[in-house]
Amino acid sequence: MTILLPHHDGSPLYVSDLAPELGDVVTVRLRVPAGYGPLAAVRTRSNPDHEPEWTDAAPLGASDGWEWWEAPVTVRNPRHGYRWVLVHDDGHVEWLNQTGLHSIETLDAEDFALVAYPAPPAWLMESVMYQVFPDRFARSVQADTHPTPDWAIPAKWDDPVDPVVPGRSQQFYGGDLEGVIDKLDHLVSLGVNLLYLTPIFPAASNHRYDASSFDRVDPLLGGDEAYIRLIEAAHARGIRVIGDLTSNHSGDRHEWFQAALGHPGAPEEEFYYFTDDANTRYEAWLGVPTLPKFNWASQELRDRFVEGPDSVVAKWLKPPYSADGWRIDVANMTGRLGSVDLNAEVRRLLRRTMIEINPDTILLGESTNDAASDLQGDGWHGAMTYPSFTRPVWGWLSEPTHAPYLTYDGRESTEPWFFTQPIGGIPRYTARQFVDAVVRFTAGIPWRVRLGNMQPLDTHDTGRFATNAAPGTVPVAAGLMMTLPGMPVIFAGDEFGLVGVDGEASRTPIPWGSEGEPAVAERLALYRELVALRHAHPVLSTGGLRWVHVDDESVVFVRESAEETLLVLAAKGDTDAELQAGAVTGVASAEALIGDATLAVAGDRSVLLSADGPTFAVWRLAGVDVPAPEPAPVTADEVSRGVVSADETTPAEQVEFA
Amino acid sequence: MTILLPHHDGSPLYVSDLAPELGDVVTVRLRVPAGYGPLAAVRTRSNPDHEPEWTDAAPLGASDGWEWWEAPVTVRNPRHGYRWVLVHDDGHVEWLNQTGLHSIETLDAEDFALVAYPAPPAWLMESVMYQVFPDRFARSVQADTHPTPDWAIPAKWDDPVDPVVPGRSQQFYGGDLEGVIDKLDHLVSLGVNLLYLTPIFPAASNHRYDASSFDRVDPLLGGDEAYIRLIEAAHARGIRVIGDLTSNHSGDRHEWFQAALGHPGAPEEEFYYFTDDANTRYEAWLGVPTLPKFNWASQELRDRFVEGPDSVVAKWLKPPYSADGWRIDVANMTGRLGSVDLNAEVRRLLRRTMIEINPDTILLGESTNDAASDLQGDGWHGAMTYPSFTRPVWGWLSEPTHAPYLTYDGRESTEPWFFTQPIGGIPRYTARQFVDAVVRFTAGIPWRVRLGNMQPLDTHDTGRFATNAAPGTVPVAAGLMMTLPGMPVIFAGDEFGLVGVDGEASRTPIPWGSEGEPAVAERLALYRELVALRHAHPVLSTGGLRWVHVDDESVVFVRESAEETLLVLAAKGDTDAELQAGAVTGVASAEALIGDATLAVAGDRSVLLSADGPTFAVWRLAGVDVPAPEPAPVTADEVSRGVVSADETTPAEQVEFA
Repeated sequence: MTILLPHHDGSPLYVSDLAPELGDVVTVRLRVPAGYGPLAAVRTRSNPDHEPEWTDAAPLGASDGWEWWEAPVTVRNPRHGYRWVLVHDDGHVEWLNQTGLHSIETLDAEDFALVAYPAPPAWLMESVMYQVFPDRFARSVQADTHPTPDWAIPAKWDDPVDPVVPGRSQQFYGGDLEGVIDKLDHLVSLGVNLLYLTPIFPAASNHRYDASSFDRVDPLLGGDEAYIRLIEAAHARGIRVIGDLTSNHSGDRHEWFQAALGHPGAPEEEFYYFTDDANTRYEAWLGVPTLPKFNWASQELRDRFVEGPDSVVAKWLKPPYSADGWRIDVANMTGRLGSVDLNAEVRRLLRRTMIEINPDTILLGESTNDAASDLQGDGWHGAMTYPSFTRPVWGWLSEPTHAPYLTYDGRESTEPWFFTQPIGGIPRYTARQFVDAVVRFTAGIPWRVRLGNMQPLDTHDTGRFATNAAPGTVPVAAGLMMTLPGMPVIFAGDEFGLVGVDGEASRTPIPWGSEGEPAVAERLALYRELVALRHAHPVLSTGGLRWVHVDDESVVFVRESAEETLLVLAAKGDTDAELQAGAVTGVASAEALIGDATLAVAGDRSVLLSADGPTFAVWRLAGVDVPAPEPAPVTADEVSRGVVSADETTPAEQVEFA
Repeated sequence: MTILLPHHDGSPLYVSDLAPELGDVVTVRLRVPAGYGPLAAVRTRSNPDHEPEWTDAAPLGASDGWEWWEAPVTVRNPRHGYRWVLVHDDGHVEWLNQTGLHSIETLDAEDFALVAYPAPPAWLMESVMYQVFPDRFARSVQADTHPTPDWAIPAKWDDPVDPVVPGRSQQFYGGDLEGVIDKLDHLVSLGVNLLYLTPIFPAASNHRYDASSFDRVDPLLGGDEAYIRLIEAAHARGIRVIGDLTSNHSGDRHEWFQAALGHPGAPEEEFYYFTDDANTRYEAWLGVPTLPKFNWASQELRDRFVEGPDSVVAKWLKPPYSADGWRIDVANMTGRLGSVDLNAEVRRLLRRTMIEINPDTILLGESTNDAASDLQGDGWHGAMTYPSFTRPVWGWLSEPTHAPYLTYDGRESTEPWFFTQPIGGIPRYTARQFVDAVVRFTAGIPWRVRLGNMQPLDTHDTGRFATNAAPGTVPVAAGLMMTLPGMPVIFAGDEFGLVGVDGEASRTPIPWGSEGEPAVAERLALYRELVALRHAHPVLSTGGLRWVHVDDESVVFVRESAEETLLVLAAKGDTDAELQAGAVTGVASAEALIGDATLAVAGDRSVLLSADGPTFAVWRLAGVDVPAPEPAPVTADEVSRGVVSADETTPAEQVEFA
């Protein structure tokens, strides 16, 4: 099935300003296949302050088989939704929103959206993230001088990971920050330019999400000085570094919690939800006693943690540390408990402080399920989230083996792990379901925020994709990660071909020294090639997305800008994908960049993409020609549409609904 | 196409408690057609505090060709979403939410939802609303004693409505509250039991949405005493009465606005958004100067208007007035302006005050488009909203004539009015699109709130449905209004067969005395029959909804409870709707209640519903037999799932995502 339909998305081809201020007039453009109409009218429909506002689109002319329309939209709310309406000459009406084209009226939540909150730094869009779990990444020579902590079960680097409690959280390999510094050239050789470290604060577990302080780097990792050296060394190589912070909870050994536990009246007791007078019972993350939950109603907690230049959030962004941002753990639950929901307040405070300290920083929130409600641009620049890419790609490209493995409690399981969803293992998606899921879970998120979403195949919290990958599909999955809108993320070890059935087994120490083994070398080369592709073609970071073919086995899409178009084919099985004439243009001069597939143009200008077996292929085409390439002038309007003088007469066209 | 699929909705067949408290365990049930599986597991998936929680369903047994499952859900948030997951023996997975069945993961916003906010009074669900626009309803003999106000253009009762400014808002027919009292027996004869009066405060227009005071009833309507008499007389007849309040704006003649306009420093200046130092420029509703917008950041405004027993909101609910609730005008824009959004605060305050004064009152908010984001049960019990029923039914059952009419500015138009959407007139929906639209715009609303939504064919703000109704479809449209979940609303005059192209033309004075004319008598009989049907069958108020057949011309659904089932056929054209065997049970003893259609059962137990032309038909069948009819015991749980003691050990199954 080929898809040749009216199109709009949030990219610069279609939106004149991705970082507007309230009151700005943004020009939005729609492209319609020639001959799709005739259209009597094209309009935008916004919903400022929850009351519709309409603007007329004017035709811009035609180019390359597409007719273009342009309309002004005044940004009246910080998240300003809009949709298109196409009125055909024969009277039928179509609506276009982020889920596609509709013959009936559409939902506000799925509108396209402009965002007038402060924009993230541009480098966020240009980043390829590399995720490091410090205990398992690399162990420096200095690490031998660190004592083994009281809670730890020491392991040697090549010991197998113990997936059963207590080893699960206490097995201790002793990777450290000097180890990371030692391996920065590996990151350079991969081409990644953003390093995300899971927590580095002192704690009583190998994952360190149970921080005992936010005020210093774990001495076992080399302490504050090692962190300073790491960030300096990374920056010197053009690699930015972000940390990991738990805004939902601390560890039970945390100095704040210890000050409050069993001490009624302590200033810190209001930081947590104690449920008895003796301060011994308390709310904890999913009932895990080592992770007491923060109560964000406390102003003192806000002061110490997120507000102002002396807060935890601020400290690590300032010199001498100068980290480039934060990934926030359990962002989805932060500030939420029963009838309380302070989440929006907390994420906005966090970002406000960061802007005060250094606006060139980024803020990502963990939100592992449907993240749309929290991702409207007011706080998180993007999310570590799985339903909009990771789970769909697992669903489509896995072939679960049902090999037995041990769960946390030592039971043997043969049900492939799938993000702790008890649904019988990994679902089997067709390519079409993959696309449907990507569309569904991105439709509620403004384009700008979508670009900031982490788009991993796996993370330290999940099994590794390769574990259950259908034969030959790792390049397809990794290719999609690098070419669909969103931030590519390599969880350290994926480039070595590591596997792991679940979030614990995936924390295998990196097998340094194996780079020369043929399978590892091949995987490393794959990642290097894909990262290089991403960097060489900015259209992959910020270009538009148009699906041009979807069937059960394959998907074809383009990423488009005025400068260039990348045509991407991803297929699980053999494919002969036929693209309708006009779906892509300039294919005669297509340049094959990646993959083993053929592109043929038929006499009717349809395009056939053919390949055997799992395939990931990319071609470069010319950029998109917009009939009026000069950006329309952007002028500020009154933010509100309602300011009047007392002596004005009533605009009568508006009295109908009074 | 017949629809025989797993089903759940928010009605008592499937949910043990529609008014749970936080922490309550609610039992939810799923029915699955026999032979649909085999199913390896059925589970619920909730998302408390935005983190998934799962429960296992147990089989209850089979009855009438359905297998039933039951699961506990602990209500952890005031709006507690949940969905079903069905794991088939062959490994494929299905998700069930308020939009239906899905083969891929679903969105949080479309989950079923339990609501732990205070419940509305039960009488809301039992109401059939009658809407009166006082200037046009009935003129008592006393009305002749009232002076014509300065702004008014007097009209005689049988003058045509003037749709052009200034007559549009100033043409004054002089209907009054004594007139309404005079006609209460008409309401009784219709069977309606809830009277909604558009504003009755003094103003400078015929619609009175530009109140000059909220403190007294317009003397032109008979003043406070007439209002007291009206409510007493209505109550004596079993009819409740609600008023209409503008929380978004006042009139520019309002005493608060006049105190502030041009008077910098006046206490009331903070009630509005003045934009200059002289208090002469200000925000107004869509720029209409007579409707200055309230600024809800003002505590003094809150005190006077909505908070506490001396507020405007409270005053009219207390004796001697004792009104039964409020419909809030422009609820959708209230408290919203640019970067400010105080809407949730205001609607919650409103309801809190009402509960203090008299919890047996109702609160409805005008939200004429997608209302889901504001309709989660925290304030509005329901909305006056159009996309979830009114616009779809117009779309399906209209046949626009394109007769010329005059717009507000005296221009002639032939584009049928459609809710001020500039989309070329009334769209043409098939029956399937009608259903798709109803499903789409109700899927984001908890069942309990959906039942409180006003479900009109038209209102004082719209054209009248009958104006463009396809021949013979008024009974179909009115029948759907009375039988789909939601509150039926008769805009006074519909029962006389009035027409009107837009929101002004529809405000025709009621043609009292025409009741004996054949066309009027027929229409009156139709409404009386339908209202009687609604009252005679409580299943229409609170029963479940299951679509059992949809094609382009017809829809068939059942409203179901343990006591009875109503089978409803609505068709625009000739129909032979075949219901798959098992879709409905007990048809052998079906009792025809309304309509001219035949019901035949085939040898394979499929059911054929046949009728000519536009049809609305209803049959009564036996109630639904649930294998375990006794409600499961409901026990309170900890509201949170996270309370622990300091000496507990970590539940290891939960550490995965730490």
